[in-house]
Amino acid sequence: MQFTLNRRSTVPMYRQLAAELREQIVSGAMAEGYRLPPERELASRLEVNRTTVLQAYQQLKDEGLIASKVGKGTFVLPLQHTETARIPVVRHKPIDEEPKPSVVRPPWSVLFSDYSNRFTYHDIASAERAQRGDTIIDFATGSPNPADIPDDLLRSVSIEAFESREFDGQPESPIEGFDELRALLAEHMSTRGVQCDVRNVMVLSGSEQGIDLIVRAFVNPGDCVLVEQSTFFPALQTFRSADARIIGVPVDEHGMRTDLLEGYCARFRPKLIYTVPTFQNPTGTTLPPERRSELIDVARRYQCLIVEDDAYGDLWYGGKSSDSHRPIPLKGMENAGYVMYLSTFSKTVTSGLRTGWIVADPHVINRLAALRRMVDQHTSTSSQRICLELLKEGRIAEHIQTLTDSYRRRRDTAIAALQRFAPDGVRWTVPAGGYYIWLSLTEGVRSLDVLESCRSQGVTFMPGSVFDVDEMDDSHIRLNFVRPDAADITDGIRVICEALERVIQAS
Amino acid sequence: MQFTLNRRSTVPMYRQLAAELREQIVSGAMAEGYRLPPERELASRLEVNRTTVLQAYQQLKDEGLIASKVGKGTFVLPLQHTETARIPVVRHKPIDEEPKPSVVRPPWSVLFSDYSNRFTYHDIASAERAQRGDTIIDFATGSPNPADIPDDLLRSVSIEAFESREFDGQPESPIEGFDELRALLAEHMSTRGVQCDVRNVMVLSGSEQGIDLIVRAFVNPGDCVLVEQSTFFPALQTFRSADARIIGVPVDEHGMRTDLLEGYCARFRPKLIYTVPTFQNPTGTTLPPERRSELIDVARRYQCLIVEDDAYGDLWYGGKSSDSHRPIPLKGMENAGYVMYLSTFSKTVTSGLRTGWIVADPHVINRLAALRRMVDQHTSTSSQRICLELLKEGRIAEHIQTLTDSYRRRRDTAIAALQRFAPDGVRWTVPAGGYYIWLSLTEGVRSLDVLESCRSQGVTFMPGSVFDVDEMDDSHIRLNFVRPDAADITDGIRVICEALERVIQAS
Repeated sequence: MQFTLNRRSTVPMYRQLAAELREQIVSGAMAEGYRLPPERELASRLEVNRTTVLQAYQQLKDEGLIASKVGKGTFVLPLQHTETARIPVVRHKPIDEEPKPSVVRPPWSVLFSDYSNRFTYHDIASAERAQRGDTIIDFATGSPNPADIPDDLLRSVSIEAFESREFDGQPESPIEGFDELRALLAEHMSTRGVQCDVRNVMVLSGSEQGIDLIVRAFVNPGDCVLVEQSTFFPALQTFRSADARIIGVPVDEHGMRTDLLEGYCARFRPKLIYTVPTFQNPTGTTLPPERRSELIDVARRYQCLIVEDDAYGDLWYGGKSSDSHRPIPLKGMENAGYVMYLSTFSKTVTSGLRTGWIVADPHVINRLAALRRMVDQHTSTSSQRICLELLKEGRIAEHIQTLTDSYRRRRDTAIAALQRFAPDGVRWTVPAGGYYIWLSLTEGVRSLDVLESCRSQGVTFMPGSVFDVDEMDDSHIRLNFVRPDAADITDGIRVICEALERVIQAS
Repeated sequence: MQFTLNRRSTVPMYRQLAAELREQIVSGAMAEGYRLPPERELASRLEVNRTTVLQAYQQLKDEGLIASKVGKGTFVLPLQHTETARIPVVRHKPIDEEPKPSVVRPPWSVLFSDYSNRFTYHDIASAERAQRGDTIIDFATGSPNPADIPDDLLRSVSIEAFESREFDGQPESPIEGFDELRALLAEHMSTRGVQCDVRNVMVLSGSEQGIDLIVRAFVNPGDCVLVEQSTFFPALQTFRSADARIIGVPVDEHGMRTDLLEGYCARFRPKLIYTVPTFQNPTGTTLPPERRSELIDVARRYQCLIVEDDAYGDLWYGGKSSDSHRPIPLKGMENAGYVMYLSTFSKTVTSGLRTGWIVADPHVINRLAALRRMVDQHTSTSSQRICLELLKEGRIAEHIQTLTDSYRRRRDTAIAALQRFAPDGVRWTVPAGGYYIWLSLTEGVRSLDVLESCRSQGVTFMPGSVFDVDEMDDSHIRLNFVRPDAADITDGIRVICEALERVIQAS
């Protein structure tokens, strides 16, 4: 047994010794059952401290390469004793003969992680199916009607951005985004009633990335996350990916039942409350001011952070009695840092930009930025640059104004059609903004059955079960009333209501 | 105790019952110690199957709300019995008095996840410091010199892309990327000796995102990942984020010691081997063809997947004896699906594009796409569009040719300077391509000391410890010879060598 330890190296001696021993064991030079020298003896032979040998042996024990038997010494373990408990046994059987490359493919199902095997593709698959069928009238897809994307505006701001000399070479961006864009976003937030500055803002590659980064930064396996009983399903999937315990808080026509929240916090001690308080996805509800205060108050008392997802907040249609004030985000009502606010350009411009943002305490921004270094580093420079041009000189505000006028009319058309065609007993929300109307079906009617019946007539929507925390409750329908062409809304809703009627008759 | 169960609902009865009981417990209507009715009694009262009550009670037990005592019945648990083991106790103490919002801030350190608290900011911080100091000659940063970014090319292709009518509105992209871009990337791969088609390619928001998605798709906590002993540190951080067991395989001047690999596979049963076989970061080594075959052979026999990170493969300087053939990627030598290949435009164009790609078996592409739905959905449409224009009509090939001519000269200048100024005993690699020269320092010299001494003279590089699997070995220096201006290389290396000399004298 030869060792070439180097006393002047910057690598600690025990690491050097462990590395040499590892190599000899792994290469077979020290075979299974080989008895290593007693620590004291090896230490004196190598003229090193006994602790050095102890530490090296300990490291190899941790790696499952050697083990000590009391009174007998330290031995190289046989291969099968290597710690492999977590890896399915089938993978471990080397194939003895030379494999035929074209035949022996990787055993994918055992190679995939448990997490990815558990992942509910179901939701996605059904959403995609809804999007890709021979759809004539689409109430399913959660993004704008392509006709509402401001082509001319995007073309002109993009060309301006790319012609500009200061944009030469599409330089790398800071992780948090370009300061100029962060400052404009902070300014944009003030129109929503949120006071913040550049240090509070990070540009994201879509607001979903913010949920993902927040989960990495805050959620330990087993931590509890409270959500609205029906909510944005990719958020649920992200919480599941971290092995969080997800508990749904009951909702009513005004959103989360904050009167129950204290009890949920006391019982479940959540780390996060994820909420879409404004024009909620999928229910279209808006949390009233007094519930907002209660939510913040409870979260603060239980030192629980709030993730406020505000993808739709800019799309307020205003005007109806109880909804006559534009909702102020939770982030605008709290200044100690308990609220982390997310938004995006995907619902007001185009999701092709893949640009969203987070407003949060600098502690949060700094932590997320550090973690993001290993994810995507920063949001595409060209997308950031286009968003910057969009925000400059109020261009986006003008576009949003046009959009809300048109969306308000579509909402009114959809509600009028429901009033006209919906079977008795079917109820719906009248959203004060955003994209969604939530239908509550009559007893015993499954939305999947209704969907089946509608698709043959080229009309699609999202079945409620996709959004349910427990993926159980299928007694709702989500209609995105901004997605179809305005002229098709009444017809589409008539088809859905007729299908509903048929399913009710048959049940 | 009133229940409003609905027999015709699509929600299973036990779920309805559990929800009602939960609400009563959480609201305090059923207080701590409340004795729930025996299962049989409640079942008969509600006229439901006894299993329904059993399942509802079981769910509430799982949630830590109730417990059964043998012979005594089922009781509502007091608050403190709620399962909170994983959450630090300090968080759980509600603040009794109304907090002053400006004073009581979230207790960030206990709120952050264990993982994010363990995260080694150190690496990043030092890299950033190196980038942002008053650097005159920068060998540290791992991205191109801004002067080498093809401004005019990027400006003209961007304007072409945005003027095009077919690009109106920057539409949403499929998760895997636009088919036209995927097809051009597949074609581009054939110039590297890899045969693949559109189904094998997914566009990524940088190749690091590929590592992240692969980890989600394949790595369970405790799974082993083999890497080169010194490697791209964000990959290490990503593996750590999944609680993988990372084992470094020794390297020499020809890269990974594949003669030892069988032993490592037999002992550690890795799920993945992550390797940068071509112009490695940080060592500049290139794995010879026979080692490539051996690596693939071993991986196949142990049913272990290979992640081939090929960020630098397009930058081959050719010509020198042993390196006289352009290396063929591992992906080009294997067709069963064991190799997942990653590359990027960050090193050849600009990292501001945030666009990379993966080439892999369709099983892998499909799984990664499903997982990516909750991450960033797709790569920015504008970036994809710019890359598409770059690939069309061989524009990028022309640019890469110019770049490699210039980089080859810079490498030769750097090597000549090392030959002239380096103290005795310092060794270095002569890379056949890519960005990096790897200096092995003389015994007892720490690269951090050398860096300290250089910075005062405005010269920076990356200390080797940043790349070491164990973050221990600090006896190397990584020089990115393409980053400084060509005219500064000789001077910069002279400064480093003089600093080295001083540190050697002092040690």
